[in-house]
Amino acid sequence: MKLGTLAIVGVGLIGGSIGKAVKERGIAQRVVGIEANPDSAQWALTNGLIDEVAAQVPDDAELVALCVPSDLVAEWVVALSQHPAPLFDVGSVKAPIIEAIAASQPVPPTFLPCHPISGSERSGPQAADAALFDGCTVVVTPLQHTAARAEQACSEFWQALGAQVVSMQPDAHDAALAVTSHLPHLLAFAFMQQVDDAHLPLTGGGFRDFTRIAAASPELWWRIMQLNRKALTAALDDYADNLRAMAEVIEQGDEGKGLALIQAAVAKRQRAQRLQDES
Amino acid sequence: MKLGTLAIVGVGLIGGSIGKAVKERGIAQRVVGIEANPDSAQWALTNGLIDEVAAQVPDDAELVALCVPSDLVAEWVVALSQHPAPLFDVGSVKAPIIEAIAASQPVPPTFLPCHPISGSERSGPQAADAALFDGCTVVVTPLQHTAARAEQACSEFWQALGAQVVSMQPDAHDAALAVTSHLPHLLAFAFMQQVDDAHLPLTGGGFRDFTRIAAASPELWWRIMQLNRKALTAALDDYADNLRAMAEVIEQGDEGKGLALIQAAVAKRQRAQRLQDES
Repeated sequence: MKLGTLAIVGVGLIGGSIGKAVKERGIAQRVVGIEANPDSAQWALTNGLIDEVAAQVPDDAELVALCVPSDLVAEWVVALSQHPAPLFDVGSVKAPIIEAIAASQPVPPTFLPCHPISGSERSGPQAADAALFDGCTVVVTPLQHTAARAEQACSEFWQALGAQVVSMQPDAHDAALAVTSHLPHLLAFAFMQQVDDAHLPLTGGGFRDFTRIAAASPELWWRIMQLNRKALTAALDDYADNLRAMAEVIEQGDEGKGLALIQAAVAKRQRAQRLQDES
Repeated sequence: MKLGTLAIVGVGLIGGSIGKAVKERGIAQRVVGIEANPDSAQWALTNGLIDEVAAQVPDDAELVALCVPSDLVAEWVVALSQHPAPLFDVGSVKAPIIEAIAASQPVPPTFLPCHPISGSERSGPQAADAALFDGCTVVVTPLQHTAARAEQACSEFWQALGAQVVSMQPDAHDAALAVTSHLPHLLAFAFMQQVDDAHLPLTGGGFRDFTRIAAASPELWWRIMQLNRKALTAALDDYADNLRAMAEVIEQGDEGKGLALIQAAVAKRQRAQRLQDES
């Protein structure tokens, strides 16, 4: 894939990583960054994540990456609905973004909702990583009227960054990510409430890994949990049932049931690890 | 520190790592392993984690490391109560072990209850790591009648392996570890119940780290959760309250309270990371 001009709206962790990877892999001749925070814009320019800074998406952009927070995607899609280039977002929720666009106008056929399942507890262009998408899965949720050309261009772009593209329905994406990502963040945030300073010297590698996601950006995660509130609440209800079942077997000392529950968890975790190792 | 003979009872992950570290650092002239599983014993011998295999702790052992599962510690302490050498265990719970010994006889003054806060989701001598205790915290919970000589010998031994030694009351240890280690395992085991195969391709680094502890040994963790059931149940009750508070602010869309909760979690997690980085 070889683009002329790529526009990146929002040059934070994700937008910055896209810029860095595109430059390293020679995917575009020119990368233009549109970034509201002047410090981030300047940093990205100085450090070669982008070639220029602009106030708006250039008319000649051949692809537009909307890397703004999920709750700001809709207004950008609406603003760019007359632009001929394919555009995609990178939000962690899909149906609420599509609904927010549809509330003001038909979703443009140039827009492909995307979600690269890749991130970091760090944020900002300083945390940009050219390998962030290498081997990661990107979920795309095309709509009935999404143009085949837009879907193809965006998918090829992600593949050029090293990602695997998977197509899903928006609601199915949101329900699955509520379980695999949003719920773990909620659980880790809740867990940290009962940790106090006296506990900190008594923590090891297990604590460190289990709570790493609790170091994420509060604003970003509040928005995601709000936008995906419906699916997240359903996942949390299931979790409360699972937690109650675990608590009961522990309280009753029911070794048969307790071991069976833990063994099922361990077997699934090992299968997940094998899948991640293979990909 | 320079020992003559060190005896290690139970040459699994922890016992094997002690053997490996002792040999690498030249802390003992001779390391004798006592291991019920003949394959593990042979592997540890062939791979140099121990110098010899024995059926029982040699009379001339100068220090005895009891690296058997927590629920087997008491019978070993009782069996070795006439042995003159200081001995320590490595169990993740302390008060229940002490109570189990006290149920049959006074706790010998040679015994120092210890807990190295270090581990891995892997198990067996094959997973032994000579650096496992380097920089880790070891909690010791001496009793009123623990001999100063035993406490000193065991503490010096841990320090020689690179660990920091912290002294606590057994109950305080169990309450703290219920929060920092046993509860996260329980939460991760419960979480895995609702993950199915269709979710697995939709997982990233956050999921991987959050669930790593769910790949641990089921038998080991069932025992730990049973032994520390009282403190764990109290920690779980607190967690249920924290989870309910998070669920409420998300459902109500209360941004002020929601952000405050998440920000408190993030701030604590960052403090924990700084402490771990410094140590």
